[in-house]
Amino acid sequence: MKILVVGGTGTLGKAVVHELGCRHTVIAAGHTKGKVQVDIKDRASIARMYQEVGKVDAVISTVGRVHFDALTKMTPEYYMIGLQDKLMGQVNLVLMGLDYINAGGSFTLTSGILSDEPIRFGSSAAMVNGALNAFVKQAAIELPPGIRINIVSPTLLEESAADYGDYFRGFETVTAARAALAYSRSVEGGQTGQVYRVW
Amino acid sequence: MKILVVGGTGTLGKAVVHELGCRHTVIAAGHTKGKVQVDIKDRASIARMYQEVGKVDAVISTVGRVHFDALTKMTPEYYMIGLQDKLMGQVNLVLMGLDYINAGGSFTLTSGILSDEPIRFGSSAAMVNGALNAFVKQAAIELPPGIRINIVSPTLLEESAADYGDYFRGFETVTAARAALAYSRSVEGGQTGQVYRVW
Repeated sequence: MKILVVGGTGTLGKAVVHELGCRHTVIAAGHTKGKVQVDIKDRASIARMYQEVGKVDAVISTVGRVHFDALTKMTPEYYMIGLQDKLMGQVNLVLMGLDYINAGGSFTLTSGILSDEPIRFGSSAAMVNGALNAFVKQAAIELPPGIRINIVSPTLLEESAADYGDYFRGFETVTAARAALAYSRSVEGGQTGQVYRVW
Repeated sequence: MKILVVGGTGTLGKAVVHELGCRHTVIAAGHTKGKVQVDIKDRASIARMYQEVGKVDAVISTVGRVHFDALTKMTPEYYMIGLQDKLMGQVNLVLMGLDYINAGGSFTLTSGILSDEPIRFGSSAAMVNGALNAFVKQAAIELPPGIRINIVSPTLLEESAADYGDYFRGFETVTAARAALAYSRSVEGGQTGQVYRVW
């Protein structure tokens, strides 16, 4: 398979590239690094990425930015960061990717634990993850026949605990390598409309 | 209690006003009708509504518009309708309402069944409902002490079946009066962070 991993240069994405790279042709796209560059907030940038990469059998996204702050300090503009980046950025990867996905292909997006298990400062992350999980479940019944879509919802990665552990006290971490298995299950398995919770 | 029902002039809102009106002072706000008018997409309009109504013990929202269309016909602009209206409109009712909610007060928002049980054409509704359910669960742990928040997720209303039944074949309906009980449970009960699924 030819697999595009958007965010393949990040902590999680690198583990996904490692997991799938031994069996498939994997192209890592990053914001500034990787074989191709893409800013998922920018539809023109997504279009350029797909033109450069061409037809693929699977699109994986491990990217998405949200703003973290106390609920009472959040503004509509702060929420819009997550809505335009992690949410609509990934939705646009799907909508625009329909022209580039081969028959029998799949999309695999990324949400996260905070819609199920909220933490302080995480209202935007919760909102965006909840939106993504529901979107994927719905999109699975409307994608063209044979095209699948799933989403991976990881908890805090062990590799990110040094940076974010203070916000996630009491949460068990998982390794990026373990989370990467869920992307393999999505791409190489047959399921659709699934939320793979890795925690 | 003094209760503001945003959307209190609509099908569901009228049932909520009826359920709570016999025990409380209820103010119905509508887009063009009702005691006060509000456009929840417009923060200035929300501010004017709260200034006019003053302090309240409960804010209920039964409003929110999303765009329905086939997934492959959806555009970012169509998704933005739901994100700015039903999602951020209701989030802004909470954030801006914090200055007007009395001690011990509550917010009760509205999502809907489509994040749990998708239908064709419902990708925006699924996305927005999933975002709202997760937002409410998270906001409950960050609101000022004693302030509660819940959300009601109804299925298709019996009163709306003539208009929307074609999209919901095989779904059991509930009466607006039955859905209204969940708003009473939220406002007059003690729970917080709950998604009341009425189906």
